[in-house]
Amino acid sequence: MEKQKIEVCYSPAMFPVYENHEAIVVVTDILRASSAIVTAFMNGVERIIPVGTLEEAKAYKDRGYMVAAERDGIVRDFADFGNSPYNFTPERVKGKHIVYSTTNGTNAIRLASSGSEVLIGAYLNISALAGHIRAAGKDLLILCAGWKNKFNLEDTLFAGALSQMVLREDHFYTICDATLGAMDLYDAASVDMMGYIEKVAQRHRLKMNNLDDVIGYCHKHDLTEMIPVLEKDYLTLR
Amino acid sequence: MEKQKIEVCYSPAMFPVYENHEAIVVVTDILRASSAIVTAFMNGVERIIPVGTLEEAKAYKDRGYMVAAERDGIVRDFADFGNSPYNFTPERVKGKHIVYSTTNGTNAIRLASSGSEVLIGAYLNISALAGHIRAAGKDLLILCAGWKNKFNLEDTLFAGALSQMVLREDHFYTICDATLGAMDLYDAASVDMMGYIEKVAQRHRLKMNNLDDVIGYCHKHDLTEMIPVLEKDYLTLR
Repeated sequence: MEKQKIEVCYSPAMFPVYENHEAIVVVTDILRASSAIVTAFMNGVERIIPVGTLEEAKAYKDRGYMVAAERDGIVRDFADFGNSPYNFTPERVKGKHIVYSTTNGTNAIRLASSGSEVLIGAYLNISALAGHIRAAGKDLLILCAGWKNKFNLEDTLFAGALSQMVLREDHFYTICDATLGAMDLYDAASVDMMGYIEKVAQRHRLKMNNLDDVIGYCHKHDLTEMIPVLEKDYLTLR
Repeated sequence: MEKQKIEVCYSPAMFPVYENHEAIVVVTDILRASSAIVTAFMNGVERIIPVGTLEEAKAYKDRGYMVAAERDGIVRDFADFGNSPYNFTPERVKGKHIVYSTTNGTNAIRLASSGSEVLIGAYLNISALAGHIRAAGKDLLILCAGWKNKFNLEDTLFAGALSQMVLREDHFYTICDATLGAMDLYDAASVDMMGYIEKVAQRHRLKMNNLDDVIGYCHKHDLTEMIPVLEKDYLTLR
């Protein structure tokens, strides 16, 4: 049986050299877009339409859509709400189509769309995600949204955790240095994850804006088995 | 006193978002270009002219220059020799100007040329390098040559080692996740560096071509205090 490879791409800027049309691409932006998207589906959203630019988000708003949009952690004034998972309450999102634009996450989703299946990954759905990937028998490429095309630790740690779970299945392998590095960093961090996350740059950015209340929540494992998937230009449940 | 920041860029593909005209940029390609360049200066080379393309290297050869050129670890037929540090013997290089083109390293050097000073870093000269950077009072940006724009472990580990040495000086700091990650990986690896290096992708590539004899040598610390520096379009000693 042919084996499936795992690769991790640390930044959208490197995506062209990792791109793999045969792979399941998991997009992750732990603090906070992918955690917020998974939460929205837990709370009954029907579709999320990821858009890259604020102009596109504004155009949707003008057509009557509900819009979540932020840049650098700050809600845009034309938007209904921002990027915190706590914003995506059942009262707001149940049965709705919501347009979503964030600093890093939504661009990464659109970039990933060349994959054979594009999934949204967070700790909140990590075991369900790993189970689906192990069963699918395809290559896995994890795309970290990063921060403005820079490497970030929190997405990398998630990539390491997911890679370890998928590699438990014999027919997966990796010779990708980024995957090996992510798994080693996860081993170093997971002993005391909240202690480790203290030092990451994004925690400082969130704290500055009093938005760091979600960090613990975004690192909770397996609150759901739901897996958001990209269909054409919107996210729905697979 | 203003503090100086340290950043690490894991791939030439991400360089535009890390670029810093005020910084000393250290280019590293541990297996093998930066180790070979430092060795060449240890053995008396006068100048190394890094060129990006094989066409440029060939054009220099036609004008009578001695040329070291390889792609994917294989010496090009028009070249005098390839990329192993063992090729840069005193008999061959002493007093010479040598043109050099490699898969990853030489392009990274040219990319880095926007920095205030561009230095070549390897374990072979790591302490001298750290000493110079600590004394210079400028930001430090370490550019990992990577592998065809992908992340690699061996360059990242070196970046972690150098960052730790420079951070011992109080007036340096880092809030760069890539620097923090590199230092944590170096801590994990340095307990048994040769054991750790067993798993990196580049070791497998070198082994396939029987070129892995240099791996131990390329991880030796402080064989020299020489620091190659980019002047206009060639490397010389600073």
